[in-house]
Amino acid sequence: MNRRIILYTLGIVCRAEAGLMLLPALCGLIYGESEGLAYIFVAAISFLIGAVLKSLKPEDHIFYLKEGCLAVALAWSGMSCIGALPYVITGEIPYYPNALFETVSGFTTTGASILSDVEALSHASLLWRSFTHWVGGMGVLVFVLAIVPLSGGSNINLMKAESPGPSVGKLMPHLKQTAMTLYLIYIFMTVAEFIILAIGKMPVFDNLCITFGTAGTGGFAIRNSGCADYTVFQQWVITIFMILFGVNFNTYYFLFAGDVKKAFKSEEVRTYFGIIGAAIAIICINTYHLYGSLSMTLTKAAFQVGSIITTTGYATTDFNLWPALSKSVLVSLMFIGACAGSTGGGIKVSRICIVMKSFLREVDSYIHPKSVKQVKMDGEPIEKDTVRAVNVYISTFILIFSISVLLVSIEGRDFTTNFTAVASAMNNIGPGLNEVGPMENFGELTTLSKFVLIVDMLAGRLELYPIVLFFDPVIWKDFVMDSRASRRKRLARIRKAVRRE
Amino acid sequence: MNRRIILYTLGIVCRAEAGLMLLPALCGLIYGESEGLAYIFVAAISFLIGAVLKSLKPEDHIFYLKEGCLAVALAWSGMSCIGALPYVITGEIPYYPNALFETVSGFTTTGASILSDVEALSHASLLWRSFTHWVGGMGVLVFVLAIVPLSGGSNINLMKAESPGPSVGKLMPHLKQTAMTLYLIYIFMTVAEFIILAIGKMPVFDNLCITFGTAGTGGFAIRNSGCADYTVFQQWVITIFMILFGVNFNTYYFLFAGDVKKAFKSEEVRTYFGIIGAAIAIICINTYHLYGSLSMTLTKAAFQVGSIITTTGYATTDFNLWPALSKSVLVSLMFIGACAGSTGGGIKVSRICIVMKSFLREVDSYIHPKSVKQVKMDGEPIEKDTVRAVNVYISTFILIFSISVLLVSIEGRDFTTNFTAVASAMNNIGPGLNEVGPMENFGELTTLSKFVLIVDMLAGRLELYPIVLFFDPVIWKDFVMDSRASRRKRLARIRKAVRRE
Repeated sequence: MNRRIILYTLGIVCRAEAGLMLLPALCGLIYGESEGLAYIFVAAISFLIGAVLKSLKPEDHIFYLKEGCLAVALAWSGMSCIGALPYVITGEIPYYPNALFETVSGFTTTGASILSDVEALSHASLLWRSFTHWVGGMGVLVFVLAIVPLSGGSNINLMKAESPGPSVGKLMPHLKQTAMTLYLIYIFMTVAEFIILAIGKMPVFDNLCITFGTAGTGGFAIRNSGCADYTVFQQWVITIFMILFGVNFNTYYFLFAGDVKKAFKSEEVRTYFGIIGAAIAIICINTYHLYGSLSMTLTKAAFQVGSIITTTGYATTDFNLWPALSKSVLVSLMFIGACAGSTGGGIKVSRICIVMKSFLREVDSYIHPKSVKQVKMDGEPIEKDTVRAVNVYISTFILIFSISVLLVSIEGRDFTTNFTAVASAMNNIGPGLNEVGPMENFGELTTLSKFVLIVDMLAGRLELYPIVLFFDPVIWKDFVMDSRASRRKRLARIRKAVRRE
Repeated sequence: MNRRIILYTLGIVCRAEAGLMLLPALCGLIYGESEGLAYIFVAAISFLIGAVLKSLKPEDHIFYLKEGCLAVALAWSGMSCIGALPYVITGEIPYYPNALFETVSGFTTTGASILSDVEALSHASLLWRSFTHWVGGMGVLVFVLAIVPLSGGSNINLMKAESPGPSVGKLMPHLKQTAMTLYLIYIFMTVAEFIILAIGKMPVFDNLCITFGTAGTGGFAIRNSGCADYTVFQQWVITIFMILFGVNFNTYYFLFAGDVKKAFKSEEVRTYFGIIGAAIAIICINTYHLYGSLSMTLTKAAFQVGSIITTTGYATTDFNLWPALSKSVLVSLMFIGACAGSTGGGIKVSRICIVMKSFLREVDSYIHPKSVKQVKMDGEPIEKDTVRAVNVYISTFILIFSISVLLVSIEGRDFTTNFTAVASAMNNIGPGLNEVGPMENFGELTTLSKFVLIVDMLAGRLELYPIVLFFDPVIWKDFVMDSRASRRKRLARIRKAVRRE
């Protein structure tokens, strides 16, 4: 285990976080809030920690998958631990576990809040909450990759560990280019939403926070009413952008590159839009009697469907009061989630496609035992190993899910609350049903439940394995035992490999 | 597709059912109930249909997996359709879909009832209800295999399609012997329970019905209070036998054969007992305050755990009133289910073991990317294909599960009710939570929901694929198109294969 490269990466992440915290600090300055000082103070600490860690120059820059996983898990937990400090220092969320819950919920783009009155927060803290969504949406390490020269061809393992989806595609020959392109698309789309919402006359501060939350598919609202008070135009803009940020970013890359045919070929994206259409149709029929007019029903249904399938979690209505069928549809969408390679969470549409196809192949094998049909996506056969990994992923998901529901139910709430609280956390959505419904919050839960949900949020965002490894003693033994001798051995092995090439 | 062999098999099954119906008829005679006549009448019809179908002599006795699946699916639906008739004729369950629900629930050993007052039924019908559990527990086609000479080596496909578990082991060189041995063990254990309950002074009729229900892990009670009125001794006898009938029958075979070491080597069985012990311990701690004394708490907890993990579904207390943690434990047990090769339902402990192990291997592959560890059970490596099939099985399970929950939620009940109703049906348990809790019944559901649950019960009992294929138009086309020419071609192919051997 290359311990130094992990600590070195952590150092970069800490320094990056220090930089990011200047935004809320600036906001505090503009609004003349003393809370801004807390952000400057924590940024300074973060920068110092970063400087110390970065001084541990690694001897080689090789990342294997285990280093990638551990680096990502440590980076995300470290960032959350530091990011929670300002809330405590300003006294806005005095209890540290609550502040940590809020920050993890921010970075993982979940959007579940422990606050019953968000409007009591300072502008600086509101902006920081929403900004964590934006940072977490595309991933911090993708950001690091985009700006920092981490040499060596195995950086892909860092990206693999952080990126959502069953397989990571390199859009361009160099990883750094890929990461930068992704960030450029991300920034471009964020700016586009901001401008359109500005045209729709949304106040600038609301606009900024809501846009950050939409782009990262996060879902922290800055009003107690969620998004219900915005105009119909603004709601539709948010709806459309939520859905757009849930599309696989490769599609946009191909679009920008002028390859329209390739952009629209993706089965995942087409399935994604198909599911959205079907869900909106069912909910419209099922809730029409609640709203009376078709346009109103459609506005509410589209917003909630877009919000849940992309795992954003904004709400314009209390869907906890919807009929059972609509609620079941929403719960299904929670698990399906957005496309791979988007900022959304959930199991991901591409995994659902692969599962559906391997199911159909299994059925087919009963009828034609000798056929050797392969599972295909976008016309190309999927490697057996990917199919296997997807199935194991789903089993792992259920395993962690079940254990979490058991742990959360210790505090004695009803089954629907426990089930949807965990579903909401693991899929990075935000609201659940019943006592964690869209008009409720997570503040009443016990610290144990909050801790379980914090782990679930991180597991969901980082696609399980980095967090599973984080709890595996074997990897920590490996981490601690990284002696000078083992480093030398590794270096020799790498040199040999390089020479052979 | 060998259509004739399927119809021929159905003929045997119909004649077998006619024979089975003589038991309730006899019971009606003993108690002087006119309801007994209905059973004689339906038995006669069933025998006639059987005679007609059996007269279609098949030209060859070859069963491929698709024939096996279709035969099993048709046999079980056919048996249920006929088995429901007496309830309608006697007027005890006048609405046919309700009668069908009750019969499918019986044969699939689910034990979910639409009746609010079971005690109003005649003795004949009560016995038939419980007897369907006993017949369904070991499987009708295993029974057919045990008594009827179906030549050809491919009968294994018939057994494969009906037997629970990820892989079918032949205990003995001949399938007929295996089937007979299984039935002998089954009868022996049934008789043992009957005798011990008789020693515990349970009335003979109660004893017979409860024993049938325990052996098949069914769960139809014959009193409105479930099993709550039986003595503590009787409850413990039922508890122990429920758990014993959930053990893989291979264990008993090895025990009877004197191979004690092999019997206790099974990881599945040890895991099964481990889960039972852990669940009882958690529930005892969690519900101690409800019952006050340890012995009382233990009695209640052990009974409910034994009942749910083996998917029997008897109840001695309204566990819907238990604290959330205990309820979550029970819901988890619903999905885990009993051992493969037992009469119990659920996903099966061996599948859970395989999933856990392939999860651990996946984690390991992150740390040691080059290791090629295989998943092992009982010290022997599991074929990759089995691991794959188990993972696909679980994905298929979730798929059918989700669609069913969506369909059931159309009628607008709460999420917990819908979720546990489907969980209970697919895992062949009986009671769920809330409106389908142990002291409630399924009679209030709409016909659509009942139909969905009927399909789920059959899908759960027959391990999904036979029922999935039943809804696949491709297989029906294959069934209808079985012409004389294609039969001749198949015969020639078989002869060639035989000659080569």
